[in-house]
Amino acid sequence: MADSLNCDLKSLSPLQLFERVTEQGEKVRALKAGKAPKDEIDAAVRMLLSLKLSYKTTTGQDYQAGLPPRDLVLINNGTTKEEDEDFVDPWNVQTSNAKGVDYDKLIVRFGSSKIDTDLINRIERATGKKPHHFLRRGIFFSHRDMDQILDAYENKKSFYLYTGRGPSSQAMHVGHLVPILFTKWLQEVFDVPLVIQLTDDEKYLWKDLTTEKAYEYAKENAKDIIACGFDINKTFIFSDLDYLGSSTGFYKNIVKVQKHVTFNQVKGIFGFTDSDCIGKISFPAIQAAPSFSSSFPQIFNGKENIQCLIPCAIDQDPYFRMTRDVAPRIGQPKPALLHSIFFPALQGAQTKMSASDPNSSVFLTDTPKQIKTKINKHAFSGGRDTIEEHRKYGGNCDVDVSFMYLTFFLEDDDRLEQLKQAYTSGELLTGELKKVLIETLQPLIAAHQERRKQVTDEMVKKFMTPRKLAFEF
Amino acid sequence: MADSLNCDLKSLSPLQLFERVTEQGEKVRALKAGKAPKDEIDAAVRMLLSLKLSYKTTTGQDYQAGLPPRDLVLINNGTTKEEDEDFVDPWNVQTSNAKGVDYDKLIVRFGSSKIDTDLINRIERATGKKPHHFLRRGIFFSHRDMDQILDAYENKKSFYLYTGRGPSSQAMHVGHLVPILFTKWLQEVFDVPLVIQLTDDEKYLWKDLTTEKAYEYAKENAKDIIACGFDINKTFIFSDLDYLGSSTGFYKNIVKVQKHVTFNQVKGIFGFTDSDCIGKISFPAIQAAPSFSSSFPQIFNGKENIQCLIPCAIDQDPYFRMTRDVAPRIGQPKPALLHSIFFPALQGAQTKMSASDPNSSVFLTDTPKQIKTKINKHAFSGGRDTIEEHRKYGGNCDVDVSFMYLTFFLEDDDRLEQLKQAYTSGELLTGELKKVLIETLQPLIAAHQERRKQVTDEMVKKFMTPRKLAFEF
Repeated sequence: MADSLNCDLKSLSPLQLFERVTEQGEKVRALKAGKAPKDEIDAAVRMLLSLKLSYKTTTGQDYQAGLPPRDLVLINNGTTKEEDEDFVDPWNVQTSNAKGVDYDKLIVRFGSSKIDTDLINRIERATGKKPHHFLRRGIFFSHRDMDQILDAYENKKSFYLYTGRGPSSQAMHVGHLVPILFTKWLQEVFDVPLVIQLTDDEKYLWKDLTTEKAYEYAKENAKDIIACGFDINKTFIFSDLDYLGSSTGFYKNIVKVQKHVTFNQVKGIFGFTDSDCIGKISFPAIQAAPSFSSSFPQIFNGKENIQCLIPCAIDQDPYFRMTRDVAPRIGQPKPALLHSIFFPALQGAQTKMSASDPNSSVFLTDTPKQIKTKINKHAFSGGRDTIEEHRKYGGNCDVDVSFMYLTFFLEDDDRLEQLKQAYTSGELLTGELKKVLIETLQPLIAAHQERRKQVTDEMVKKFMTPRKLAFEF
Repeated sequence: MADSLNCDLKSLSPLQLFERVTEQGEKVRALKAGKAPKDEIDAAVRMLLSLKLSYKTTTGQDYQAGLPPRDLVLINNGTTKEEDEDFVDPWNVQTSNAKGVDYDKLIVRFGSSKIDTDLINRIERATGKKPHHFLRRGIFFSHRDMDQILDAYENKKSFYLYTGRGPSSQAMHVGHLVPILFTKWLQEVFDVPLVIQLTDDEKYLWKDLTTEKAYEYAKENAKDIIACGFDINKTFIFSDLDYLGSSTGFYKNIVKVQKHVTFNQVKGIFGFTDSDCIGKISFPAIQAAPSFSSSFPQIFNGKENIQCLIPCAIDQDPYFRMTRDVAPRIGQPKPALLHSIFFPALQGAQTKMSASDPNSSVFLTDTPKQIKTKINKHAFSGGRDTIEEHRKYGGNCDVDVSFMYLTFFLEDDDRLEQLKQAYTSGELLTGELKKVLIETLQPLIAAHQERRKQVTDEMVKKFMTPRKLAFEF
């Protein structure tokens, strides 16, 4: 029974499931109160337990009476009759749509703004530089208050950039480069200071890691970041475990955020439960605090009103919605944001790449041979089953992971358009498209590895030392 | 109706009240389910709200279905038919017994050990010094693992002392001196390092204070502590807001504790609710972390296994029960504890002194005249209503606050015993006993004020600077 029940339940939304559990709970209570026959009560209890299990499987949360599933992170993409839903939070991205998450719906649900042609043109005018292909191609697709950043910038009022990375393993994958490379471009075209947070404390709290190991991963990840070519005089990279104990301003901002956010709020935003450790529960404040310039007195000379711009993947937005809610209450400006889409897993755009599944990702440490094998073997294809069918009907770029990766890493717009047309028309075969991707990623990763070798422990130490940067405040 | 109901409810224990609320909730649900007349439902709902209010007033917690009042902090002192209960947590101490909290019951409930004559004799043998009158008179009455501290000490293995203070206002009262003076004695007789935590972050989180103000109070309180005569070469005083940002070891221990304590646990121990801010919820880890020597790498040369002994009032024990639970799981030794009884308010031993009620306390800033007036006017007397009755039946030292204060501050055992006999026999009148107390406190406080004037900002700065102390590890 439970199996067929679970089949039925799969088509229910989390909220519908929640209501079913609540109803069934009331039914059990009524049966008990009315002293119904034992077997009738038992059957109702079994049904209740089965419903609760389905609820947990679907939402990842335990059912709690009176507490409906958190709605901020559930996005009904509405593309199918079954009402499939996209699930997006800082730890999970799931959609049943092979094209990936419905980002237009995400903008509506998150209450952010679309990066439209007008905004892209404005960035081009303000900087005098051609917009990065991540902007031109909608990879950074959503923002909060970017227009205010530009208003101020045009009035000679500067800002700073803040981005981050959770160092969960030694090796980063190519998807991790997306916010890093875009941030580097922003830093160059706007000429502003940059702080990069490595949340080794978060990884210690969430994973089975020692603090020492998490800090070691932070330093290894810093090498990959430095290898992207950041200017040491304009960039501060910090590990939380290290910097929290060496800054007079950082902890003060953390405790200020912590005073203004309740457990109810983080429960609603991040889905924490009563069984979560108090470290996880208070962590969001640690990711929030670098949004305030007073967390970096050494850089900003103690100034508190410097505006912050955060480029990040959209799954990090919950942290910064919370931060923006708190900011005015602690007398700080709200950080502005630029959101990217997720970098898809090799297996398809239903989920993002994960460093913990080696076959879902192309790593920055992979050899040319590994890159070739992974893409040929695992990259989900939008091509047809036979060459004949492919020639006749063409491939589907919307779901083809190799094509998606090329939109991230092939900078030449004309070449990309040619590939799209050739693949869609059936002229280009899946193997040929994969070959283009392999030949794009191999030199890119080889060059990264070469630059990474040049990054010394001394350089890492300097990047990670709190110090003045080459800006006056 | 609500008033007479509240009168009835006052005689109920928190658990009885909890059961009443639960029953009433079920009644409301049954009425609604049975579609009872509206006025009947409304009356039941009003009763439910009234019961919930009483529950909150009595327990300080919101009623939560399925979550009975926390039992760790409710101590049935069993001295009266009405089953009065002592309420003890880090923020509140309440008992209906004029003699104060029943400390023997507290020992049983908290699972600590009584400081008996054997232990006191052992301390005397180990140190070669006459035990402090706080030990001889049962003011420090309970301990955890003090025998292990002595075992190790006798084998030439040293330890360190950790105590603390929440700087909620500029002025400290005489009750605050109790742990400080006892800790000073321990430091002198054992010759060990001492760390004193000023939890300005806690006060920022709990009170309507800025971080700047809380830090200022911390520095003012440090002056009072220094004025007690601590050795600058053996003592480190720190503000959390300041030290967290200047220690490589402190935050690492905080995050380790935070990983091993769940919200469910702090809810049970401290009574936090979902509406509490995440700063309060994670704060217990900040009070826990100084129990581990690796929080002070500058003092202990990074050594992690130095045993810690914490003298504190018994209301702080919940923090350290939690700490002792976590310690083995993060590879650290459990801190040992010495617990004092509460310092009673002038109005009587039903509650402890509070710095926020000026008339409940004798402050270290009070003038001789203020001391005299406060004691004469507010000190609860165990004497009789008329001189004749007093001469005939004698006074009651068990409930007389002046006598209680003398047990804290009159060091001469013989004199104290004489006073007790004279007062109990009726020979000594209330006014005369109060005069002895006034003449004991006036010079003590005047001398403190004189020493405090000698404490310079430079000295405060040095005491609060992380540095090596005059010990080798």
